[in-house]
Amino acid sequence: MQKLDAEVLTIGDELNRGEIVDTNSSWLAERLTELGLHVRWRSSVTDDEPDIAQALEQAAGRARVVVCSGGLGPTDDDRTVDVVARLVGVEPAADPDHEAFMRARFAERKFAITPNNLRQVRVPRGADVLKNRKGLAPGFRVAHRSAELYFMPGVPREMKSIFTDEAAPRIARLAGDGPKLARRTWRVAGMGESHVDHALAGLLDGIADATLHFRIAFPENLVTVIVRRADEREAREVLERVDADVRARLGDHLYGVDDQSLAQVVGAKLRAKGATLALAESCTGGLVGQLITSVPGSSDYFRGGAVVYANDVKSALLGVRDETLRAHGAVSRETAIELAEGARRVFAADWGVALTGIAGPGGGTPEKPAGTVDLAVCGPNTVEHRRLFWPGERDPVRQIAASAALHLLYKLLNRA
Amino acid sequence: MQKLDAEVLTIGDELNRGEIVDTNSSWLAERLTELGLHVRWRSSVTDDEPDIAQALEQAAGRARVVVCSGGLGPTDDDRTVDVVARLVGVEPAADPDHEAFMRARFAERKFAITPNNLRQVRVPRGADVLKNRKGLAPGFRVAHRSAELYFMPGVPREMKSIFTDEAAPRIARLAGDGPKLARRTWRVAGMGESHVDHALAGLLDGIADATLHFRIAFPENLVTVIVRRADEREAREVLERVDADVRARLGDHLYGVDDQSLAQVVGAKLRAKGATLALAESCTGGLVGQLITSVPGSSDYFRGGAVVYANDVKSALLGVRDETLRAHGAVSRETAIELAEGARRVFAADWGVALTGIAGPGGGTPEKPAGTVDLAVCGPNTVEHRRLFWPGERDPVRQIAASAALHLLYKLLNRA
Repeated sequence: MQKLDAEVLTIGDELNRGEIVDTNSSWLAERLTELGLHVRWRSSVTDDEPDIAQALEQAAGRARVVVCSGGLGPTDDDRTVDVVARLVGVEPAADPDHEAFMRARFAERKFAITPNNLRQVRVPRGADVLKNRKGLAPGFRVAHRSAELYFMPGVPREMKSIFTDEAAPRIARLAGDGPKLARRTWRVAGMGESHVDHALAGLLDGIADATLHFRIAFPENLVTVIVRRADEREAREVLERVDADVRARLGDHLYGVDDQSLAQVVGAKLRAKGATLALAESCTGGLVGQLITSVPGSSDYFRGGAVVYANDVKSALLGVRDETLRAHGAVSRETAIELAEGARRVFAADWGVALTGIAGPGGGTPEKPAGTVDLAVCGPNTVEHRRLFWPGERDPVRQIAASAALHLLYKLLNRA
Repeated sequence: MQKLDAEVLTIGDELNRGEIVDTNSSWLAERLTELGLHVRWRSSVTDDEPDIAQALEQAAGRARVVVCSGGLGPTDDDRTVDVVARLVGVEPAADPDHEAFMRARFAERKFAITPNNLRQVRVPRGADVLKNRKGLAPGFRVAHRSAELYFMPGVPREMKSIFTDEAAPRIARLAGDGPKLARRTWRVAGMGESHVDHALAGLLDGIADATLHFRIAFPENLVTVIVRRADEREAREVLERVDADVRARLGDHLYGVDDQSLAQVVGAKLRAKGATLALAESCTGGLVGQLITSVPGSSDYFRGGAVVYANDVKSALLGVRDETLRAHGAVSRETAIELAEGARRVFAADWGVALTGIAGPGGGTPEKPAGTVDLAVCGPNTVEHRRLFWPGERDPVRQIAASAALHLLYKLLNRA
């Protein structure tokens, strides 16, 4: 099975000055690989027109599929449309659908349209327009030399949406008689990468044309298996057998597949039980609440939370006893449990989750160094505590703590 | 003043499959920019020898400095040394210093040395060896065509150490009489990219060798100016003049420079005034609290917050009156102000910030569609309300709302 050669090209001064990490390039390379293409080149150039033109000319001469992001914004240094139009010998022209959408949206917000805004809805005349459902600048496809070239804005949200909805189906058709793919990503919490690796050793032994990939989505780990078969149904059947094996090996460290977040999975379980949740957060400062409420419809099961940063607020708002704070300190099993019980009571919820810890860099003691976090989960018939210690920076400590709290809740909801 | 053109080349199958994000490429681009070079190209190829050779040949033909990482490991698919040796017409040969170090280390750990291990200490014969203090594989420098080419392993820790200690000084000497850089990034809230662009039109008119760059760090916008002069002091003086102009043009939409976040700037103002803050969050679910507490030492001024997701919790916890909720609804100027006042009172804080809105996609009405958010900030002598409307997805609505709330607080603290 011969794979099509692909090139990813990202465009933007800020990328080549290293001001932002070029995550688009990696994301696109991963998607193209999954579509069965061979990504032989990734390139990146500045906003200079001659460099963009040269890179496109080269890519179109060596790859069958070229996917580009960047340089489609409203400002004068966004040059991609002009360069591509010249390359294929046409003029730029406004795409009527995107222009109408922009005019409607600006009118709605009472924004004035500047000439720069109108730059953004242009495509090379006659190009195949790739609809942007998340923003103003359309993507587009043109043919040049032996290649199909796809263009998308650099804003990751818009790029991903256009690629998934518009570009990927076209590319899949182009790669049509290649192998069929079945893929799944399993999401793992509370287990380091090397332990996941160990638990899955030999997973694909005896299974031909299947590959295993690890990726860290801190603080969680992702495992992806891609199965390639001439027949799509066969690929899916093999994948289901692998799925059963992965589940047996990872137990309740495995909390979801593909795009499911811990907050989504926990939310679905709460909804299924008709149960509600309240939070008491100290060191995470609202992070767990933000994760829970990032799920649409979370108001069905989320009552609310208290961010109790100051100690007197822990007592006044959630009824943590002064003796508890005095005897055990704010970061302790006892305080965590009183916080979780307090959150349940004050917010009239079925489940209460509490986190209290020292995110650092300051505030640690020899007994409780920075990176120590006490978690508690209280439910109708459950009280569970766990102490974490993660000697690292402030943000990772908070992320690990939030993930561990949601994972503990997940496991208890599984058993309840 | 002519800058030297540079190219960054990263090598490795795993990069072009998108399994890991190519942070090396961005890191090297940023360092080279700081050294005064113009990074015109970043490229990435697989471990295939012909592709590596072609990429090196091209880079050496167009750039003055080429910096490569990857393909120097012990396994058979690490081909960089062989390709470079062939390119410059020599044989690979073990570097005696690194071989001796490896033999000593392996003896210490009682490991046997395999032929593969010895692959790792090779360099093209006659190359300038770049010492690796963090690992086994030496880096090296060769000249080819008009370029100096630098090679380092792909392990970020080793690459960074070799670049900083060994490559950067050589590159700085090469670029010795090149221009000096002065740079600053200004951070802007509450103003779209095209409006920032408009406000800064002509900013650099009459200023030679200076460039302006826009970047979105959603929901905020960043503007960077880089000034190049033969003399470093002169570059800095020009930058200070630009700074004064930028400040005059952007007013209090400009909230910080370089790496400062809104939460840091707000926190610094609260600390300077000896004032404290409390939050009442509905649609943002804890996001504002998380931003505020992402700043180390925020416990000095942050008292806490209430995530009041359910309506009865808004009343029970923060004393929003039932009549207010009945007459105006949960998303209203009146409720937002009572929430902010309630947060101030319950948490005994000087400033209270509240957000109540419909993040969507569900929950909207014709009068208050999804994307409507009411913000209020109450201070010792201040009550301010603002209604936002951002018809978009849940996450961007929440991010916009959090940014707008912090920005409103920033402006009021400026005036208080």
